[in-house]
Amino acid sequence: MAGEKKVEQITDMEADFAQWYTDVCLKAELIDYSSVKGMFILRPYGYAIWENIQAYLDRAFKGCGHVNVSMPLLIPEGLLQKEKDHVEGFAPECAWVTFGGSEELSERLCVRPTSETLFCEHWSHILRSWRDLPYLYNQWCSVLRWEKTTRPFLRHREFLWQEGHTLHATAEEAVSETERMLEVYADCCENFLAMPVLRGIKTESEKFAGAERTYALECMMHDRKALQNGTSHYFGDGFTRAFGITFSDRNNQQAYPFQTSWGFTTRTIGGGIMTHGDNSGLVLPPRVAPFQVVVLPVAAHKPGVAEAAQALAGRLTAAGLRVKEDFSDNSPGWKFAEYEMKGVPLRLELGPRDIAAGHCVAVRRDSGEKTALPLENVEQSVQVLLDDIQSALFHKAKENLLSHTYAARTVSEVKAIAGGAGGFIKPMWCGDAACEAAMKEKAGVSSRCLPFAQEKLGDTCAVCGKPADKMVVWGVAY
Amino acid sequence: MAGEKKVEQITDMEADFAQWYTDVCLKAELIDYSSVKGMFILRPYGYAIWENIQAYLDRAFKGCGHVNVSMPLLIPEGLLQKEKDHVEGFAPECAWVTFGGSEELSERLCVRPTSETLFCEHWSHILRSWRDLPYLYNQWCSVLRWEKTTRPFLRHREFLWQEGHTLHATAEEAVSETERMLEVYADCCENFLAMPVLRGIKTESEKFAGAERTYALECMMHDRKALQNGTSHYFGDGFTRAFGITFSDRNNQQAYPFQTSWGFTTRTIGGGIMTHGDNSGLVLPPRVAPFQVVVLPVAAHKPGVAEAAQALAGRLTAAGLRVKEDFSDNSPGWKFAEYEMKGVPLRLELGPRDIAAGHCVAVRRDSGEKTALPLENVEQSVQVLLDDIQSALFHKAKENLLSHTYAARTVSEVKAIAGGAGGFIKPMWCGDAACEAAMKEKAGVSSRCLPFAQEKLGDTCAVCGKPADKMVVWGVAY
Repeated sequence: MAGEKKVEQITDMEADFAQWYTDVCLKAELIDYSSVKGMFILRPYGYAIWENIQAYLDRAFKGCGHVNVSMPLLIPEGLLQKEKDHVEGFAPECAWVTFGGSEELSERLCVRPTSETLFCEHWSHILRSWRDLPYLYNQWCSVLRWEKTTRPFLRHREFLWQEGHTLHATAEEAVSETERMLEVYADCCENFLAMPVLRGIKTESEKFAGAERTYALECMMHDRKALQNGTSHYFGDGFTRAFGITFSDRNNQQAYPFQTSWGFTTRTIGGGIMTHGDNSGLVLPPRVAPFQVVVLPVAAHKPGVAEAAQALAGRLTAAGLRVKEDFSDNSPGWKFAEYEMKGVPLRLELGPRDIAAGHCVAVRRDSGEKTALPLENVEQSVQVLLDDIQSALFHKAKENLLSHTYAARTVSEVKAIAGGAGGFIKPMWCGDAACEAAMKEKAGVSSRCLPFAQEKLGDTCAVCGKPADKMVVWGVAY
Repeated sequence: MAGEKKVEQITDMEADFAQWYTDVCLKAELIDYSSVKGMFILRPYGYAIWENIQAYLDRAFKGCGHVNVSMPLLIPEGLLQKEKDHVEGFAPECAWVTFGGSEELSERLCVRPTSETLFCEHWSHILRSWRDLPYLYNQWCSVLRWEKTTRPFLRHREFLWQEGHTLHATAEEAVSETERMLEVYADCCENFLAMPVLRGIKTESEKFAGAERTYALECMMHDRKALQNGTSHYFGDGFTRAFGITFSDRNNQQAYPFQTSWGFTTRTIGGGIMTHGDNSGLVLPPRVAPFQVVVLPVAAHKPGVAEAAQALAGRLTAAGLRVKEDFSDNSPGWKFAEYEMKGVPLRLELGPRDIAAGHCVAVRRDSGEKTALPLENVEQSVQVLLDDIQSALFHKAKENLLSHTYAARTVSEVKAIAGGAGGFIKPMWCGDAACEAAMKEKAGVSSRCLPFAQEKLGDTCAVCGKPADKMVVWGVAY
């Protein structure tokens, strides 16, 4: 059965990758368009995936001592302007509220594109002493960025995310928080979403507006393009000086605290589609799937079948699994295609012959492999299969990443790889921003990050030929 | 200890109820002001209360079969205008986005004040057949209403809420859904928040803009004012006709479906403060409290005390309770006042003498009552005390509601009660909107609802003297 195409209305990814992606988003009922360009509706099945991600991350944050808060939606223009680099980065893509009811506002308000300025203003009111620190805050919300080009999950004008904002007495503590939260995201990507990541630091030109340093995770999609999936920023005391946030330190001296922020968004759902999906539609890793198992009766009208299927679904639910049952009068073929398209990791079929034999038939979404599972101990054997699917998806994606990561010594080598199969390309770099800009223009790629795991693949800059000791990963990015 | 005032900076409620309320909101660190009027910051302690309410309601909704979705933040003006009564009700208090980046928009977009129009537009795209119904949707988000007068929790320009939106094949099913969800809210108020409610139907003049019928819950505050706490609306097919939403019914005929919506907001936190709070600050029912128990070591420097307190906190946490420990070097007196102000239901003190006696001292926040609890089985005795506090708070609030609910036969009787001790006032009403308007103007009260539990307290209208068979509850409302 593996590879057999069931759902005719999805375009093949080899024929048109972008259309395949849009087809999956719409036909698996993850998303719908609204009447405002770039503002998407997350339908129940798409939102359920986000809820599972939220639950995983929220538990991780609370385990680190973070607490949730709610900040206002709107930022007065004057507040946004307090930190110079920040406003330069964000003002061009803000949506502006200019009227409240029938009254024109004396100062226009932007719908938050991110909330550093709001947190800083609040902290300036409440911070007194080193005893109050650290502040370890997080907020779940949506933000607006008035993008010109938009795509489901990958680039919305409004997207859902969490934004963590923390404040610390020392720079060391803030840097260590920035790194800790990148690792929390990496854990979520690798162990929950089955998406292998490259951990690294952004170059100056690619860092967050107002940050001193930006850490990021990069994932590789089926089409070998890069997707940034989670960022963590260290701000030093840039904002706290701009906002006049001080505290009295252990020596009773007034001092400026140090700040971080970090965010993870619904774009990761798009990344998951392009990491695991296939020509039959969505493929969801079991840990994040809204339904991990679908139980389908075969010949449900025959005596005992519906009851046996219901009992099976009940047992799996009682064992803590997320189970979908479908007893509708749609044909088994239609149901197979439907739940394949929706990426349910495991299908369990149960017909009169299976019942007689004391088993059900398990069909894996990732490989199409069929196994007869004895009904005795089915809870355990289903869990084993789900764990195996989770692990297989991760390793397949890791293999894709590793086998499409290339060394390169010159701009033309980078360009040839990017224009060919594509992937992560690792030339050496002297550190000069002009060389970065030249590579971007000539090779049609952008710098993804300076990986934590640096390799010495040469000693000269791929652009200028001068001595170089930094390895940068480049790619074509979403 | 009961009634002794520990926290001097909170105004007495008898001296100035409004100032007492604001003091509690700010000094218990529930909320802070932002730089935009009416847009409040929910601080960690305030937001934690909301998270507990969210968890309770979300579980209840999912138990009823509702699924969560995410709709856009912005509504095009033309979409808002599709249902005539709805736009009349909401347009005057909308905030309008007129610029995206540097570009003026061709159609202005309002920040959602509520999302009926967005759900209807989406449904018009996806609905085909009676097999698709019912749609049982919910969304957790914030909405904006550009109010002139604002107060923490009670009236925000931006507030957090959930909005449920459902679509049904028949009017009967939609009405029954409207009533079911009111009952879910009533359960949350009474059994989780310990706030007794009056269930009823709003008069025509007080119903939601565009609704055919609005059900509501009314609570009574310490100052005998009414607080509306949860509403549920039945729309008939008004919106679905306006939006052209049709489906093919069981007889293969095109038909218009029937709609409901229902909402519950952060204003309930303000209601809880004014239902349970006292002159020492917040009083939280154990089920919703971020911390149910605070464990405080007394003479923590003496050998074994800190360890014993930590062990006690650990045992209670392991038993599933939400426990705060405070081992800071603040004085016991300061800590007592701090956690009283924050409304932690139960304080457990543990000093050298307690340890020697094999007990800890439990102090109830609601009554100040002290009990020595043997450390053996302390998990069970703490749970018994918490259950008793939860129940005592409910019954005290119920007593307040019942003892300030009055029959009245004339406008001047209503006015005298409202201008005196205040409370719920129950005159009879003929059903004429003119009589309702006259009562409002002359007695300074607004109609709260037509209670489900109607009483025949007379047979003439308190305003016009004509025959009347409806009992309306009136009051001064937040």
